[in-house]
Amino acid sequence: MNIELLIIGNEILIGKIQDTNSTWMAKRITKFGHKIKRITTIGDELEEISSALQNILNREPDIIITSGGLGPTFDDMTLEGVALALNRELELNQHAYNSVEKAYDHAFKQGFLQLEGMTKEREKMAYLPKGSIPLPNIRGTAPGVKIKEGKTEIYCLPGVPAEMKKIFGIAILPFLKEKKGKFIERGFILSGIGESQMAPYVSKLEEQYKQQLWIKSHPRIGLAVEVEISITAFNVESGEELVESALQELKEIVLKLNGKILEER
Amino acid sequence: MNIELLIIGNEILIGKIQDTNSTWMAKRITKFGHKIKRITTIGDELEEISSALQNILNREPDIIITSGGLGPTFDDMTLEGVALALNRELELNQHAYNSVEKAYDHAFKQGFLQLEGMTKEREKMAYLPKGSIPLPNIRGTAPGVKIKEGKTEIYCLPGVPAEMKKIFGIAILPFLKEKKGKFIERGFILSGIGESQMAPYVSKLEEQYKQQLWIKSHPRIGLAVEVEISITAFNVESGEELVESALQELKEIVLKLNGKILEER
Repeated sequence: MNIELLIIGNEILIGKIQDTNSTWMAKRITKFGHKIKRITTIGDELEEISSALQNILNREPDIIITSGGLGPTFDDMTLEGVALALNRELELNQHAYNSVEKAYDHAFKQGFLQLEGMTKEREKMAYLPKGSIPLPNIRGTAPGVKIKEGKTEIYCLPGVPAEMKKIFGIAILPFLKEKKGKFIERGFILSGIGESQMAPYVSKLEEQYKQQLWIKSHPRIGLAVEVEISITAFNVESGEELVESALQELKEIVLKLNGKILEER
Repeated sequence: MNIELLIIGNEILIGKIQDTNSTWMAKRITKFGHKIKRITTIGDELEEISSALQNILNREPDIIITSGGLGPTFDDMTLEGVALALNRELELNQHAYNSVEKAYDHAFKQGFLQLEGMTKEREKMAYLPKGSIPLPNIRGTAPGVKIKEGKTEIYCLPGVPAEMKKIFGIAILPFLKEKKGKFIERGFILSGIGESQMAPYVSKLEEQYKQQLWIKSHPRIGLAVEVEISITAFNVESGEELVESALQELKEIVLKLNGKILEER
């Protein structure tokens, strides 16, 4: 499946925090044989969220995952942005309301909060775009949201990594596994031949494998070069054969050019 | 100035490497009072690079900075993508050619390379979109590129962090400084009051400061809350006064609600 991420948060755009959520999600999405096509990172601005989401929807990915902007404060406006982009109303979702209320009750009883019960700001987290399914957040207060638009499934997750990971694991991962291919990767590190010297051979090999494989070289410390061959295979056995065969050809080329293979991976 | 980043590299989309370049650039851009509006991360695909760049150009930022895809291999296709987006030819740039040649000569003489002189793949790095100015890369081989389209200045930088940073420092930073405002930030960490309980006060205060300030709260470990007030000021003195005044008001609110201020920043 094709997937796009929409990361929402001023803190990232000003360089205050490093977005690690997209890398974490990317690893898992890739592992199960799906592809992230694009990651868009924007600030907490209503128009920006709405227009970025519309741009992504126009490209018709199978899944869009947003992260950030689900909390109680005035600058958490992801759901308002989603509602605007989809031209839907925000409406009170009773399941979401109950889960937010329960989370605050719990925090109050633990002595973490001074103010008991629901406030306008706490209620805000239970107003979801029409047609949403709330995704329980057992690590925090703001529920995630799942909503379908055309052929695209949109998941809105919190920006706090622990909360994002938990909801991703429960609501998205099983779906990725169900539709899975396998991402197969092999490679080696060589020395004695520059990246640009390898390039025509790599290029020819890729042509030969008719764009089924992704073959990539990149420089490593001390002018060593790392070469990687990968594929997203739905038939695992034939995928592994294909990668193995390309790997052998590349290794022969390296030896023919008097390069050394330092390490296989 | 409004700035957008375009980060190019399959490795990031598969979660193999964490993009630290955009955080590094974001810190410096913010420090000198400029604003990153959006970060777009895409893979090494020609059509994708071209269409993402066109999307960004349509939003007319003052500056676009791309990172990645300038190297010698077949999957380094940033400049081809830029040329396609701008509908310009790639043409041999003699300055770029000389600098690439010199870098490979040097590496060969140091014993790092087997193959002397220019090859088709090495030459590729000297083919720049018509109207480009090459930006010397003293840490690597592929020069950066500066190119103007309409009112937007486009800078293409390498993806290797050391090379990106060096060219950014020489070619972009002085321009940011020349046009600079100052990013002023103050804040504190409080406990005893939840984020949602602070929200209506923060909201009201922001209203009062007529969107000149950015006031943000976010949860910290142990249910403490961090509050930050920031501004990008072109008159530094009045900017500092404004932030100080909002800070005092917020602190009074915290104390009135029986919260505790744990730490000022």
